Amino acid sequence: MRLRNKPWAKDKLREYSNFVIHEPEQHRGKWGQVFEKDQPLHIEIGTGKGQFITGMAKANPDINYIGIELQESVIVSALDRLIEVDLPNCKLMNVNGAELAKYFESGDVSRVYLNFSDPWPKTRHEKRRLTFKSFLEVYESILVKNGEIHFKTDNQGLFEYSLVSFSHYGMKLNYVSLDLHNSEYEGNIMTEYEEKFSSRGSRIYRCEVQFIAE
Amino acid sequence: MRLRNKPWAKDKLREYSNFVIHEPEQHRGKWGQVFEKDQPLHIEIGTGKGQFITGMAKANPDINYIGIELQESVIVSALDRLIEVDLPNCKLMNVNGAELAKYFESGDVSRVYLNFSDPWPKTRHEKRRLTFKSFLEVYESILVKNGEIHFKTDNQGLFEYSLVSFSHYGMKLNYVSLDLHNSEYEGNIMTEYEEKFSSRGSRIYRCEVQFIAE
Ligand SMILES: C[S@@+](CC[C@H](N)C(=O)[O-])C[C@H]1O[C@@H](n2cnc3c(N)ncnc32)[C@H](O)[C@@H]1O
Ligand SMILES: C[S@@+](CC[C@H](N)C(=O)[O-])C[C@H]1O[C@@H](n2cnc3c(N)ncnc32)[C@H](O)[C@@H]1O
Repeated sequence: MRLRNKPWAKDKLREYSNFVIHEPEQHRGKWGQVFEKDQPLHIEIGTGKGQFITGMAKANPDINYIGIELQESVIVSALDRLIEVDLPNCKLMNVNGAELAKYFESGDVSRVYLNFSDPWPKTRHEKRRLTFKSFLEVYESILVKNGEIHFKTDNQGLFEYSLVSFSHYGMKLNYVSLDLHNSEYEGNIMTEYEEKFSSRGSRIYRCEVQFIAE
Repeated sequence: MRLRNKPWAKDKLREYSNFVIHEPEQHRGKWGQVFEKDQPLHIEIGTGKGQFITGMAKANPDINYIGIELQESVIVSALDRLIEVDLPNCKLMNVNGAELAKYFESGDVSRVYLNFSDPWPKTRHEKRRLTFKSFLEVYESILVKNGEIHFKTDNQGLFEYSLVSFSHYGMKLNYVSLDLHNSEYEGNIMTEYEEKFSSRGSRIYRCEVQFIAE
């Protein structure tokens, strides 16, 4: 994601405290209270400009959503979108996905979405990939029992890596498509990257994997 | 595989008893005796015209190979090839892959290869796919502990299905390529189908999966 310096971003995020979650550690174990309705919570890590998370929130009013994004200069675009659509079941959080265990306890999250995560193709950067073992440990520690990760990407290398990483972690593969846009999968909500890459002819890969309780 | 009627095939297979294994149930538990050297045994199920199995046997003299093929009118072509290359570590067997537990006992086989298996795309034919649960049970029952299946195909639907089937069986994915011919994988030996489909521009998918001993 190309970053433009947006010195006003921090202030804007602070201003919209109905859409942006501040001091998330205070909600640990009681996330239902943050939303209008106490219902299952799905999170997206690396939400970018928020097209997916707002689209999902609109399509599924019985689920609460949080879009998590590290870069404040990016998440402000998601905020603009959220201000426009004004959904009661969608919030944003400007934190690092590696640190989610500080903000969520076991069972707080019902599903994790990863979409077009940065591929970090060099082997020495493996630990930065959002599907590396240490991240899976974090996701497992905040998810419900037998919780799922739903993952999409156009990046062949990252998808191959992730399938192996999930399997070695002991996760179960419940669904895989090696060409999502030519598959029978219904109700797909596109991300910004998905629109861009698929319009250039890239295949989109998608899978659903599940943590297995001992 | 288009089948031509070859009434002489049965006789020819019988004639070459140095290359074609007859009464395989007699070798159960003692396959090392069938070959010049007592060394690990790898089998391919659905070996077709034998290009892969003979290529592998030539490249790896320290492994014994058996190509297993249901159709006698097809396996005679593999026999012709084997007569030509005359390898001490390669044999053929004209039996059904579903019945391998009759011929091999636990630990007899060190690896199973599946290459371009018939896709059986209709859901009602799922049970015929060589990666269906009941086949995995057979492979597990004849393999060494933590034995592997190495699987290649051009068929996207069969590959997707198989990844899920392996995972649901509790197998571990150790390697996956979603575009074998543009990958860093070395030493690939092509099958007849692989040559045909890749020359027409199809992607080749490949994976290595492992049974996990309890
Ligand atoms: C390639 S973009 C994809 C954005 C969006 N998901 C899409 O598909 O259009 C990846 C995003 O993940 C964010 N990101 C990377 N690592 C992160 C982390 N550890 N925690 C939160 N966000 C992260 C980046 O800042 C970037 O905005
Ligand atoms: C599509 S062809 C592929 C042949 C070869 N592996 C290749 O890649 O060129 C599949 C082969 O599997 C054989 N076959 C199908 N089911 C089988 C079974 N249950 N046991 C043994 N062979 C089988 C078929 O007769 C056919 O020759």
